[in-house]
Amino acid sequence: MSSTASKLDPDRQLPSSGQRSSCYHKGLKYLTNSPKKADRCSSRTKNGKFPDTTNTPLRNLALCRKPPGSVSPAKRQINEVKETKTTVNCVTFPLPGEGPEQQLLKPNEWSYCDYFWADKKDPQGTTHVTGFEVLLQKQLKGKQLQKEMAEFIHERIKIEEEYAKNLSKLSLSPLAAQEEGTLGEAWTQLKKSLHDEAEVHLKFSNKLHTEVEKPLLTFRCDNFKKDLKKYDHHIADIRKQLASRFAGVEKARKALADRQKDLEVKTQQLEIKLSNKTEEDIKKARRKSTQAGDDLMRSLDLYNQTQSKWFEEMVTTSMELEKLEVERVEWIQQHLRQYTTLRHETDMFNQSTVEPVDQLLQNVDPAKDRELWVKENKTGEVRPVDLDI
Amino acid sequence: MSSTASKLDPDRQLPSSGQRSSCYHKGLKYLTNSPKKADRCSSRTKNGKFPDTTNTPLRNLALCRKPPGSVSPAKRQINEVKETKTTVNCVTFPLPGEGPEQQLLKPNEWSYCDYFWADKKDPQGTTHVTGFEVLLQKQLKGKQLQKEMAEFIHERIKIEEEYAKNLSKLSLSPLAAQEEGTLGEAWTQLKKSLHDEAEVHLKFSNKLHTEVEKPLLTFRCDNFKKDLKKYDHHIADIRKQLASRFAGVEKARKALADRQKDLEVKTQQLEIKLSNKTEEDIKKARRKSTQAGDDLMRSLDLYNQTQSKWFEEMVTTSMELEKLEVERVEWIQQHLRQYTTLRHETDMFNQSTVEPVDQLLQNVDPAKDRELWVKENKTGEVRPVDLDI
Repeated sequence: MSSTASKLDPDRQLPSSGQRSSCYHKGLKYLTNSPKKADRCSSRTKNGKFPDTTNTPLRNLALCRKPPGSVSPAKRQINEVKETKTTVNCVTFPLPGEGPEQQLLKPNEWSYCDYFWADKKDPQGTTHVTGFEVLLQKQLKGKQLQKEMAEFIHERIKIEEEYAKNLSKLSLSPLAAQEEGTLGEAWTQLKKSLHDEAEVHLKFSNKLHTEVEKPLLTFRCDNFKKDLKKYDHHIADIRKQLASRFAGVEKARKALADRQKDLEVKTQQLEIKLSNKTEEDIKKARRKSTQAGDDLMRSLDLYNQTQSKWFEEMVTTSMELEKLEVERVEWIQQHLRQYTTLRHETDMFNQSTVEPVDQLLQNVDPAKDRELWVKENKTGEVRPVDLDI
Repeated sequence: MSSTASKLDPDRQLPSSGQRSSCYHKGLKYLTNSPKKADRCSSRTKNGKFPDTTNTPLRNLALCRKPPGSVSPAKRQINEVKETKTTVNCVTFPLPGEGPEQQLLKPNEWSYCDYFWADKKDPQGTTHVTGFEVLLQKQLKGKQLQKEMAEFIHERIKIEEEYAKNLSKLSLSPLAAQEEGTLGEAWTQLKKSLHDEAEVHLKFSNKLHTEVEKPLLTFRCDNFKKDLKKYDHHIADIRKQLASRFAGVEKARKALADRQKDLEVKTQQLEIKLSNKTEEDIKKARRKSTQAGDDLMRSLDLYNQTQSKWFEEMVTTSMELEKLEVERVEWIQQHLRQYTTLRHETDMFNQSTVEPVDQLLQNVDPAKDRELWVKENKTGEVRPVDLDI
């Protein structure tokens, strides 16, 4: 993860995860704004009550097929206890209205880090996609669209080249090349102006290539997709770890239940004095029950550590992707602006190709042309006279 | 002739030819300027001396192969008399330095009517072309060049249509159509702007067709060439008549010479008193000689009438052609100006196609686009909390 991240943002510091329960603070220390608010909204994770939690059967966890919000069979037996949390695909959320109100991490920013915590069913509804995958797909689509824009510009370049080719070809045509005098000069310049126009459009297409098509095409080389994959795998691995640790919690909880049952039985036996060895057994059973309680606490601890690590990575990485998207939009904006600038230039340069033609058309003078032609073609100015004897 | 002329200039009045010797005045009354000068320069045709003139053998006249300025065999026998005129291809000119100085009919105007009196050898030097044919060829070439310009414009129109077709095709491409938000709007407008550009170029090509190509193509319909042919035949007919009348002069001149010889012989016989009938014969011979003298005067008269008619037609018609050429040059100038005007318009309209794109590119806002996308794609904003017993 760190290698991937450093590729995209060398200065970025990774969360030193692992210390328990303060995890939501750690996640927040990577937010650019209002750390106080962030503290407040996550603090309630300390003073939570301790009711029995919703359990998700192991097989569902492993396959991650459990729809959000549904309730496990185990739950139905213990419905007298009020629930405050629900665990969906191994991630634990407060139930609506339970626990203190959560403020957005970055209010009024529509930041990625605030809106992609839940998984969602994919269109087919057969599997689910994580919120993080939704963010990754946005990135991949953006990269694709950027490539398509480059392709569009390339097509425009080809059109300009074709146009320029035809114009300069026509400018070399011998049509009316024999026109003489001032009119001949204007005509010659008009034909030449097509060559100048061709040059303008050729320059336009060259600049489109170097200043628009190429930047759009090369912005974020192929490493980009590799980097996204690394993000993807990193977050997915933490989700897997979270699943197995949640399984651990379930196992420990069952073991504790068994021990407590055993202790109960032994205690009843003591009351009806069935044997005198019972004192010993009860001590033993209480020790084992305490042991099981400690195991459950440890596995809960491990689970919460992993969930906090996932939280941190989600916050940090989604903000990374958010930054990347801002960069993409601004990069494209910048180079489409360059496109319109080049278009304006082209129109201006085109104007200038006509001006010398206008000049010479102003100078066209039939009398002058007649003088030139007569000087060259006259046959004789001596007029006839009467013949005489 | 009159019908042809009236086609080109209804107001034009034809010379009422036929009255003799004042012909060079008649020719001049169709000149727009300085009739005085014109009178002066033609007046000397009245007080010309009466030396023996250069004669051209009949067969040469008929075939019109005699090179200008050359001298007939007949001439060589009578070389003791100083010559003041020379007849070339049946047209009679004063010799250099002979007769009063000729002023130009239209000084400083390089008018056709002043420079095409002589015939000239064609490039191969085998035949000769009249000055008037040189003027006609100029007209035909002008008509051809005008057609070639229309052809050139037509080629330009095809290039514009092709360009427009490609642009509007590309504007419909689905590339990057999925881009969303403010960036998506800007991109959509950029694609649309190609359609607008296409419209501009299509409008350009349509106007080129109606306002430049067609006028250049249809200016002076096919009647024009027919009219030129009529001019051509009319002038050529007068030249033929001039040739046959010059032949008449030659014949009459020979007859007179024979009669004078006969009278001479008879007079010698009288002196040596060979017979007494001679008195009678001499009277008879003298009558016949006088008769031949009168015949020569009549044929000279007819020749000069025809030459004056040719002069008039040359002046009037060459000025007609001069007017036509001025009109052609001005017509082309006017429509090439229309071409540059349309080009300028096109560049301006093109500018305006980019402006809405600039607008929307200014409005591109990554934060706004994130908000829109998050609202549509968020999976859940409730953050995870610690799991407990």
